[in-house]
Amino acid sequence: MNYGYVRFILGRILLLEAVLLIPSLLLSLIDKEGGQILLALVLSMGMALGLGILLSFRTPVQTAFYAREGFVIVALAWIALSFFGALPFVISGTIPSIIDAFFETASGFTTTGASILTNVEAMPRSLLFWRSLTHLIGGMGVLVFVLAIMPRVESAAVHIMKAEVPGPIFGKLLARVSNSARVLYIIYLLMTAALVILLFAGGMPLFDSFLHAFGAAGTGGFSIKNTSIAFYDSAYIEMVLAVAMILFGVNFNLYYLILIRQVKTALKNEELRWYLGIIAASVLVISISISSLYDSPGRLLRDVFFTVSSIITTTGYVTADFDQWPLIARAVLLLLMFVGAMSGSTGGGLKVTRVALLIKTGIQEIRRTINPNRRTPLKFDGKAMDSPLQRSINTYFTVYALFFTFSLLIVSIHAPNFITAFSAVAATFNNIGPGLDMAGPTSNYAGLSDLSKIVLSFAMIAGRLEILPVLILFSPRTWRKI
Amino acid sequence: MNYGYVRFILGRILLLEAVLLIPSLLLSLIDKEGGQILLALVLSMGMALGLGILLSFRTPVQTAFYAREGFVIVALAWIALSFFGALPFVISGTIPSIIDAFFETASGFTTTGASILTNVEAMPRSLLFWRSLTHLIGGMGVLVFVLAIMPRVESAAVHIMKAEVPGPIFGKLLARVSNSARVLYIIYLLMTAALVILLFAGGMPLFDSFLHAFGAAGTGGFSIKNTSIAFYDSAYIEMVLAVAMILFGVNFNLYYLILIRQVKTALKNEELRWYLGIIAASVLVISISISSLYDSPGRLLRDVFFTVSSIITTTGYVTADFDQWPLIARAVLLLLMFVGAMSGSTGGGLKVTRVALLIKTGIQEIRRTINPNRRTPLKFDGKAMDSPLQRSINTYFTVYALFFTFSLLIVSIHAPNFITAFSAVAATFNNIGPGLDMAGPTSNYAGLSDLSKIVLSFAMIAGRLEILPVLILFSPRTWRKI
Repeated sequence: MNYGYVRFILGRILLLEAVLLIPSLLLSLIDKEGGQILLALVLSMGMALGLGILLSFRTPVQTAFYAREGFVIVALAWIALSFFGALPFVISGTIPSIIDAFFETASGFTTTGASILTNVEAMPRSLLFWRSLTHLIGGMGVLVFVLAIMPRVESAAVHIMKAEVPGPIFGKLLARVSNSARVLYIIYLLMTAALVILLFAGGMPLFDSFLHAFGAAGTGGFSIKNTSIAFYDSAYIEMVLAVAMILFGVNFNLYYLILIRQVKTALKNEELRWYLGIIAASVLVISISISSLYDSPGRLLRDVFFTVSSIITTTGYVTADFDQWPLIARAVLLLLMFVGAMSGSTGGGLKVTRVALLIKTGIQEIRRTINPNRRTPLKFDGKAMDSPLQRSINTYFTVYALFFTFSLLIVSIHAPNFITAFSAVAATFNNIGPGLDMAGPTSNYAGLSDLSKIVLSFAMIAGRLEILPVLILFSPRTWRKI
Repeated sequence: MNYGYVRFILGRILLLEAVLLIPSLLLSLIDKEGGQILLALVLSMGMALGLGILLSFRTPVQTAFYAREGFVIVALAWIALSFFGALPFVISGTIPSIIDAFFETASGFTTTGASILTNVEAMPRSLLFWRSLTHLIGGMGVLVFVLAIMPRVESAAVHIMKAEVPGPIFGKLLARVSNSARVLYIIYLLMTAALVILLFAGGMPLFDSFLHAFGAAGTGGFSIKNTSIAFYDSAYIEMVLAVAMILFGVNFNLYYLILIRQVKTALKNEELRWYLGIIAASVLVISISISSLYDSPGRLLRDVFFTVSSIITTTGYVTADFDQWPLIARAVLLLLMFVGAMSGSTGGGLKVTRVALLIKTGIQEIRRTINPNRRTPLKFDGKAMDSPLQRSINTYFTVYALFFTFSLLIVSIHAPNFITAFSAVAATFNNIGPGLDMAGPTSNYAGLSDLSKIVLSFAMIAGRLEILPVLILFSPRTWRKI
């Protein structure tokens, strides 16, 4: 382990976090929110700044940097960001428990959107802004930010990107890290800006438009209303957000392709077709299963489309209380939680590519059984999948299932019932936000035990970073000196 | 597809089923159960006999026999056996619905033990005997019977064995099929006989001893009392059964090794250590979690040990209403349902080898991430696992998860709640028997919808045959002429 390097980067990240708190500080001053909030923000910034300077003061001597260092930095960065990002809530007393505040902030940075706040509307605007800003930051990954401001670490960057960019296929685009990071960063921010304008045009207040756009961009899902998006009761706003969520769940490589006028290649993308197909099929099945609950087919479609879009993209905005829907509808939603969005997007879950490849592997296995002599390679996107990739996807699925099972067991110690425990782990590990029953859309995570909240916080971080970076923190081998 | 051969073997299997109904016929005569029952048994035997003769009258011309034919025969055999085996219940009117009767008989032959009977004690003894006998038959697989009585098909037999013998490692012992089948068959029947004697010696009536021994031998779990084993309220009987279930969950290859005096090799077996380790750990965790419910530690250990033994071996006998236990205890039991017994035993589930290898794969993946250059091969039982085997286990897990998800979705259409749907699929697909809530130990599957029962019946057969034989029935390619 190259301790010097890890220390240095972590310091830089804390400095960045201090800077990112500035808008909230300004907002607090404008709103005249009072000494307690202001003090909390200043103190938190000071601590992040102080430790940041301390850690990054000496540039590292050794520059040896391997995947291991990349993974460790990413995992520690997410934990450190969540911890220091939680301080404003704790010091101001708006979320007195450090465990609750850590959960909320980790939920923000991992773009999960699971909340322990029972009355979010009571929160001062500066802290609401900080809470939603964590989604925007988390969305494309703090480390893409770090890359954009630190072009010196070119060679090291690939390792960080590998841990960072969600999804199994590590696109060519992203290999040319630093420049590409800037391109993605610009696409991402332009799309967010467009969404702010569209929401504002639909009658949503400007502050709300910003914060909900942050939530959609990061596919996070923190709302600033207790009833989430249902508060605005506007078909326009819901449709704009539903489409926006789907767009933020698309692989950003495709936008790059469109940008360089390879529209046809982008539209032919197999993962895109699976993604849209799964959305269409889910809307159909859920609509049929809940049709008796609705008088108007328009209202029905609006609720179902929004919910499916919100869940598959792992955002978690809510307009309808889907916990009241029949079991089959909830089962489809649970399934979508595992599918997640496309690889290379801001969404979580297993990712559509992986699910598609797992299904194809299953079909291939049946074919092989019938015809043991025929060896047709598994194809995806027209290209034959090589066995190392296939192996790594199968292995990922195994590690995923093991981590899921382990978390489920721990959460089951205190959870009131199985659906709460199961959906809470599914909704946090896949970075969705709301689960079912006690973790459901009209309830939240406040009622769970501290142990559950700690495990779910780590599940969020593990899910966001595709598990391995978090797991290797617990291996003694990782910490050996080199 | 070699239709002639498939037809011929299916005919032979039906003839065998007709013969296996004879003891029930005799019992019915002895008990003077009356015309309705007798007629039902005679008619059912007649139908199986008639169709059996019709199908096996002409010996097949072609002898070409591949894995495909083996898989198809095994899957069709299980379906045909369950269908004809269900007729006595339907014709006698004891289970009027054919769907219910098929569910019950499939549950028997697959050694699942899930029941739709709300009052099993009202069933005549002849039918109770038939119901439990299906466990004994299913236990080591009807096709081991077929192999033992048909030594001519030596070359074909390997394919059938491959589909039949549970577990991923196709032991050397089993390669020398026909003789080995006889050896296994003798060990199996001797162990069952010993269990009958032990139960009878403990005060259980002889009839009950036989039937419960059948249930334990096949790791099935049909009881003839409404309250299952709790009825006898005897620590001795419970301990004898708990140990017997664990022994029937052991890989039968190990008994063969002990028989040829390789005791040391048998005890060194890694899967055995995992198996016993998982049992010990589960007993510990559950005991701690439910300790507040018990006054006497002896009673507590007795209930927990019996339940853990019953669930991990996928038997499903019940002494305590574990549906009343805290969620963490139920979560551990749910987990054990997936683990299942050892490969090469009569138990179901994923099998201990597979679970152990999946865990080892996960750990290996973490190690590889830390040290990408070090390539230590995965070892099991002291031998390095080759990648085809590793691949096949990962793929199996994928197919398993897909089949599970699909069944869960269909059962969710009519199930009252998530835990019922989830545990019902888990308990049938893994051939356990009782699930939780509406499918729980004090309830049963009677209240589920017909659609759910059909899906769960197929889940039982698919689980018993390790999925692929059932899946390839649905592929049009399978049915092409050769």
